[in-house]
Amino acid sequence: MSEQSSSLSDVLFGRPLATEEGEGERVGPVAGVPILGLDALASAAYGPEALLTVLLPLGLAGLHYTSILTPLIVCVLLIVFASYRQTLTAYPGGGGAYTVAKENLGTGASLVAAAALMLDYLMNVAVAIAAGVGALVSVVPSLLPHTLSLCLAVLIVLTLINLRGVRATGLAFMAPTYLFVACLFTTIAIGVAKTMAAGGAPEPEVTLPSVASTTTEALSVWLLLRAFSAGCTALTGVEAVSNGVPIFRKPSDVGARRTLAMIVTILTVLILGEAFLCQAYRVTATVAGQAGYQSVLSQLVSAVAGRGTFYHVTLGSVVVVLTLSANTSFADFPRLCRILAGDKYLPEPFVHRGRRLAFSYGIFALSAMSALLLIAFGGITEALIHLFAVGAFLAFTMSQLGMVAHWRRTIAPHARRSLWLNAAGALATGVTLLVVLASKFTEGAWISVLLIGGIIVLLVQVRRHYDFIARATSTSLSLEVGPPKPPIAVLPLRRWDAVTLKALSFAVGFAPEVVAVQVLTGDREVDDLSPSWSELVEEPAKKQGLQPPKLVVLRSEYRQLFAPLLSFVTQLGSDHPDRQIAVVVPELVEPRWYHYLLHNQTASLLKTLLLFRGGPQIVLVSMPWYLQDWLPERRRLLSMRRRNGASLPTSSRNAR
Amino acid sequence: MSEQSSSLSDVLFGRPLATEEGEGERVGPVAGVPILGLDALASAAYGPEALLTVLLPLGLAGLHYTSILTPLIVCVLLIVFASYRQTLTAYPGGGGAYTVAKENLGTGASLVAAAALMLDYLMNVAVAIAAGVGALVSVVPSLLPHTLSLCLAVLIVLTLINLRGVRATGLAFMAPTYLFVACLFTTIAIGVAKTMAAGGAPEPEVTLPSVASTTTEALSVWLLLRAFSAGCTALTGVEAVSNGVPIFRKPSDVGARRTLAMIVTILTVLILGEAFLCQAYRVTATVAGQAGYQSVLSQLVSAVAGRGTFYHVTLGSVVVVLTLSANTSFADFPRLCRILAGDKYLPEPFVHRGRRLAFSYGIFALSAMSALLLIAFGGITEALIHLFAVGAFLAFTMSQLGMVAHWRRTIAPHARRSLWLNAAGALATGVTLLVVLASKFTEGAWISVLLIGGIIVLLVQVRRHYDFIARATSTSLSLEVGPPKPPIAVLPLRRWDAVTLKALSFAVGFAPEVVAVQVLTGDREVDDLSPSWSELVEEPAKKQGLQPPKLVVLRSEYRQLFAPLLSFVTQLGSDHPDRQIAVVVPELVEPRWYHYLLHNQTASLLKTLLLFRGGPQIVLVSMPWYLQDWLPERRRLLSMRRRNGASLPTSSRNAR
Repeated sequence: MSEQSSSLSDVLFGRPLATEEGEGERVGPVAGVPILGLDALASAAYGPEALLTVLLPLGLAGLHYTSILTPLIVCVLLIVFASYRQTLTAYPGGGGAYTVAKENLGTGASLVAAAALMLDYLMNVAVAIAAGVGALVSVVPSLLPHTLSLCLAVLIVLTLINLRGVRATGLAFMAPTYLFVACLFTTIAIGVAKTMAAGGAPEPEVTLPSVASTTTEALSVWLLLRAFSAGCTALTGVEAVSNGVPIFRKPSDVGARRTLAMIVTILTVLILGEAFLCQAYRVTATVAGQAGYQSVLSQLVSAVAGRGTFYHVTLGSVVVVLTLSANTSFADFPRLCRILAGDKYLPEPFVHRGRRLAFSYGIFALSAMSALLLIAFGGITEALIHLFAVGAFLAFTMSQLGMVAHWRRTIAPHARRSLWLNAAGALATGVTLLVVLASKFTEGAWISVLLIGGIIVLLVQVRRHYDFIARATSTSLSLEVGPPKPPIAVLPLRRWDAVTLKALSFAVGFAPEVVAVQVLTGDREVDDLSPSWSELVEEPAKKQGLQPPKLVVLRSEYRQLFAPLLSFVTQLGSDHPDRQIAVVVPELVEPRWYHYLLHNQTASLLKTLLLFRGGPQIVLVSMPWYLQDWLPERRRLLSMRRRNGASLPTSSRNAR
Repeated sequence: MSEQSSSLSDVLFGRPLATEEGEGERVGPVAGVPILGLDALASAAYGPEALLTVLLPLGLAGLHYTSILTPLIVCVLLIVFASYRQTLTAYPGGGGAYTVAKENLGTGASLVAAAALMLDYLMNVAVAIAAGVGALVSVVPSLLPHTLSLCLAVLIVLTLINLRGVRATGLAFMAPTYLFVACLFTTIAIGVAKTMAAGGAPEPEVTLPSVASTTTEALSVWLLLRAFSAGCTALTGVEAVSNGVPIFRKPSDVGARRTLAMIVTILTVLILGEAFLCQAYRVTATVAGQAGYQSVLSQLVSAVAGRGTFYHVTLGSVVVVLTLSANTSFADFPRLCRILAGDKYLPEPFVHRGRRLAFSYGIFALSAMSALLLIAFGGITEALIHLFAVGAFLAFTMSQLGMVAHWRRTIAPHARRSLWLNAAGALATGVTLLVVLASKFTEGAWISVLLIGGIIVLLVQVRRHYDFIARATSTSLSLEVGPPKPPIAVLPLRRWDAVTLKALSFAVGFAPEVVAVQVLTGDREVDDLSPSWSELVEEPAKKQGLQPPKLVVLRSEYRQLFAPLLSFVTQLGSDHPDRQIAVVVPELVEPRWYHYLLHNQTASLLKTLLLFRGGPQIVLVSMPWYLQDWLPERRRLLSMRRRNGASLPTSSRNAR
């Protein structure tokens, strides 16, 4: 409101941008990868590890199956890539799972997709931040009691950066993203070179945890399916680009396709490279939470390059990217909310862009809900990981199914080929979804199903309410009212001052009958105005030929002034059922927002109460009195007095 | 606002109480001890330990000096007790340090006392909760990452209990308080009995940490002074009763004196008993934070009674009382704020009592600031302990000095004796203050000095602002305005519906000129009303002999509808500098508060913006349209239709 606050906002959020500056806020593929790709790239850090962990009971044989399953997973990745490329071409305006499902499968399916995506994005924030902070805390154990504070601090930084807009976010995250890619690529290159030089059996630089040679669980199709679906978590995040098309410079679909291609290329190299190095160096997963746990990436990097500076830089960049992968949600969640709000499934404010053209309301909502999640779980959100995979793969599958329906209706030379591609994608992601659901159902996946159901109910209820209000307020009546009767004005006052005087002057100007009400609560000493009312108000009003305003003094047995005032107004209304009761509330407006803490809570509360409880006859009139208009006037008078030795006008004589 | 929300509030906060029920909310000494005494009783857990810790470098000799210093500290406690007894008699209405200093030493000293007390209370909450949770976490290390969440949970519970009022608080905390007292008294009794039986050298039940027989620091006056002042922290909290007199049943001062006597008696027994047992069992402090640390109380209880159930119950009650000692602040801080607000040093809402006659605003303020402190320090607030002792002893000293000045002016038989008693108290607490300041200045006490200064500046600024506003708004003008010109009404609208229609009818009733403004933002599809305006509004208005309202359609290049509307209103104002511009805002009022999330943010924002930026010509008129009044009407019509097969009135025909 004031200059201070706007300059503080400028520092925190950047200067406001006009709509026409929107084009300049758009980005190309190089910035697109950090904005929309971090979720996908971070999954290279946990996907292969998840696969190896499921295969652990097979012992050494597990490593063998890794080399069969990994190419399969990369195949699925490429199918998903190809089918999302098609989606981007078919929906250049942004083809998130919700949009594709809505246009091809109908409302029900689109809401399932929307709910799945919302859950996915929300969980992603909580899980990514908690994972990053967890990694930091495991290195610096003295920070352990500060886990939650650190999580919240990261969340606040992400929120502020995203409120500054898309461009700022891309710039901020570019360095860590490409450092992560460069470090892992270097690791893979060195590892492959060493493997070649050593004829396929390189010597690790450090001693690695040994791989058990015995199997503790028999090989089964179910085990392989679980391993496959665990490995498929490396795919999560690939859908982000399709939801974020509008952030790209025009033609947006070209930028989006390039970004998707970059992300998938990097991801493919990382997945295949990691699988190759695991084979070569005989690296397998260790059990998280048990003594001697070491992540697969940590083992690989130390095996290839030892535990020197490079190791620490690489692992550091992994932690940073894990944490920042929360950002993908910040890019996509508000956009999804905007589309849903446009279809009236969410409140209208989600539609509006903020000062930096970001969808501030969506960003705040995501932030607030993530903060609640983090606080509820104390910053330890491992339990939420399954919830998050279910959301992601459900959205994937809905989107692919939508595209299948799309191609069935399309008559184009490549439609049939495209249909089969999307069908293959739907099958792969659908199988993954079912396996995740079946294997993790009791471990928390059932919560996802409940939550997705809950979100759908919420969305439907919001839409129903909007439709109901539209029906309730719609009217084909024109202004056919009889000549309206003039309102009765009620002016609540505490003492006689300039603020009250301005409000009273306005009241006598628009209403023929004015009742001033003074409530004496005894909390702070306020003088009863009855003795002076005639001189202050009645006589001057009569002189001007106006109906003199009455004064009613109410003594409150209760502590607050609201109850007697409210009942007075209600009584007045029922005494005059054919009149509107206009309550004129004098308000002191001060130039500094923080001064507002000192005044006006009474006025605000009174207005809220009257609005909600007043009934249909009530009209609220706020009469502002501006301190800043009075200040220059007073300064002028003071300087005049200094020059002339004249006295100030009466308005300041009564001051103590 | 709605029935749901008020019943939820009833569960959380209890049913509202009327002012006359206040007497029933008052308590006697038995409940007074848990409400106002926990801070003092908890200090028995850390005062003696602090003394022993300072004497550690003296080795075995330290134990010897403990038996000299402890009676001295008890003497100071008794002097402070006697002098506070006098204060309670002299100020039966409540004689906190602020009141006593204000009446006897003047404004400056009273503000110092107030700031010291506020700091003391605030720090006490953060330190007590963090200490309690820290003790719990050290027993259950798996809770360590949840430290902050636990602290905040305790804070929320304390806040809710205190919002339920004084009586509820006393009842809730009675059991743990008296359990704590009973356990420690039992420990002392058994210990003393065993010591007698064993002829002065009892055998501990468990092996205790051995006391170093060598001294690592020479005995000096400075060391003894530091030990004395460390031991004096056992006195903190004794002042709480003098600030909380109004919570007692009338005659309040009698209840307060009895409570104080009970607290001091318990405290004396605990301090002397602990010191005796330390001597008998040769127990000394271990260094906190180092391996093998064990609190003095834990050593004593295990030495006397072994590590059985009794040990665990006793130590458990100590932890609970440490945590709940935060409650003393909740009892006193809001009362201090109320007194300060009455003197206009704090905002007015601090004066008002909430639904349960508690000073809700002060409770919320204390809670919010403590939460910020806890979050900022991640729930580890050891560093704040020094800040807290400085505040407490500064307030002590100011209060004692005030009483000295009081007796100097009093002509009464016992005035001279009383004067010397208070002077002795002032000397003891003053010396303690100086020693704490000098020995802990660089360790954080300097922050207290800064903070107390900052709080004083804040209080003075608030008072200045209120005085300034009183001067600025004061007026001796009466209603001598010329006959006011009628206002111009501006009606912002989005679409033609019943809400708009009601507002427009009111506008044509009170203003001769009405301008309806439709802003088209393109965010959600809204129809331009220009083509239908003549039929909907102009023709019917002319028929009734009214000046027909104009329609202005603004197309917004920006995203929001506020900017063009604001500039339109400002322009209209400068075109008609002699008229008021009444902006009539139609508002849909719904019966459920949560529906409010779906609507009206636009109306609220618009009103705020106009109020702050609109300038002196603006008047804001809120025209509510009540959904609940419409619902029964619609239900009646629907049932009529079912009976008659008749169609609904036009107001629903346009619904989609």
